[in-house]
Amino acid sequence: MFRETQARSVAKSLSWRLLGTVSTALLVFIFSRRVVLSIAVGTAEFFAKLGLYWVHERFWDRLSYGRRQVEPAVVWFTGLPASGKSTVADAVAETLTSRGYKVERLDGDSVRQLFPKTGFSRAERDEHLRRVGFLASRMEKQGVFVVASFVSPYEDSRRFVRGLCRNFVEVYVATPLEECERRDPKGQYAKARRGEIANFTGVSDPYEPPANPDVVIDTTNARVEHLRDRVLSAIRDG
Amino acid sequence: MFRETQARSVAKSLSWRLLGTVSTALLVFIFSRRVVLSIAVGTAEFFAKLGLYWVHERFWDRLSYGRRQVEPAVVWFTGLPASGKSTVADAVAETLTSRGYKVERLDGDSVRQLFPKTGFSRAERDEHLRRVGFLASRMEKQGVFVVASFVSPYEDSRRFVRGLCRNFVEVYVATPLEECERRDPKGQYAKARRGEIANFTGVSDPYEPPANPDVVIDTTNARVEHLRDRVLSAIRDG
Repeated sequence: MFRETQARSVAKSLSWRLLGTVSTALLVFIFSRRVVLSIAVGTAEFFAKLGLYWVHERFWDRLSYGRRQVEPAVVWFTGLPASGKSTVADAVAETLTSRGYKVERLDGDSVRQLFPKTGFSRAERDEHLRRVGFLASRMEKQGVFVVASFVSPYEDSRRFVRGLCRNFVEVYVATPLEECERRDPKGQYAKARRGEIANFTGVSDPYEPPANPDVVIDTTNARVEHLRDRVLSAIRDG
Repeated sequence: MFRETQARSVAKSLSWRLLGTVSTALLVFIFSRRVVLSIAVGTAEFFAKLGLYWVHERFWDRLSYGRRQVEPAVVWFTGLPASGKSTVADAVAETLTSRGYKVERLDGDSVRQLFPKTGFSRAERDEHLRRVGFLASRMEKQGVFVVASFVSPYEDSRRFVRGLCRNFVEVYVATPLEECERRDPKGQYAKARRGEIANFTGVSDPYEPPANPDVVIDTTNARVEHLRDRVLSAIRDG
């Protein structure tokens, strides 16, 4: 939430005063055709109103009337590991931030780093997702855009999160398994194939595609900017 | 986050215009002693500047200069069941809200309702608290005051949460066990004594008092307003 500093009120007062005094002096001249009178009124007005305007600004800073809370959204990216969720989500978050919105970026990898005990069983994944979804929904209620990227493989968990949020935008990153496995930036698919990682989504754990996603994107041979814009256009108010 | 509506800009333009035009007409009169000229300049100024001022307002709405982000806090109430955490926390949250701040109220009972599978073993309590603390810390970073009331019996969990937050205010509600047990609003102490509830803090599970709490309160025979004010005075910027 914001409060205006004294410096902002002073700067606004000065910028208005320049605009205001020039126009006043001009008006006096148009009506009286007297140069000295115009300058005298302009000069007196400059100092008198500088103070009045500042008082007016401070008064309005205390009034909340007409300060509109922006209606944000929870933009939820779901898809296989290495499908390109984080890349597109980063681009979406960056654009929303550059538009002056408050944005919370939640990513599967970084949240799990903070909660290393969270496992990959169905129950643990589900609980993890529900907790993150709860966080996202509370953020949204406070006026913050949430851009979340999680494998989130189960329809059940995603439905729970949708139910908590007001404006839930589900982005299904439907890059085919073969392409994800070809990329394999952390070598996890290879390990999963060798049986070194258990419960790996796409290999040894199911991925349940969303039944009614709001946006479907495939990152194979696609430009990030293009995919980002498709997601942004699905967000009201974004 | 806020944007100003057109209606706010129009209302501000009108309120300033009344103030501005009366003072301009007065100035013209003081310098010229001509009533008709004063009224003519005032009238022309009224309409000309109404538009100029509105343009000036819309321009400044796009500038972030001088909009100060308030530095919020995570106010964390810890203490035995029925010690009075929620009552004082509600009062603190209400006051912060009335001061125009954004406030997130998190309460042990209501969060657990959403996550009914969360048990009361040491590991489960600890994980639960850490998750809630993570939520609180992210809220704080977005400029929201968090008022949390949880038994949170373990020093370890509380230290983890403190580490995540920027401005963590720990409120130890040190109402004695005997008083909490005498109140027993939900009959849980009685059940715990009869062995019908396992791991009940204060009876069959330990409560580790905070080593360095920021505020210590005892709700025995104390007025809520007094305790609320003691907590508020420990919050910077509150």
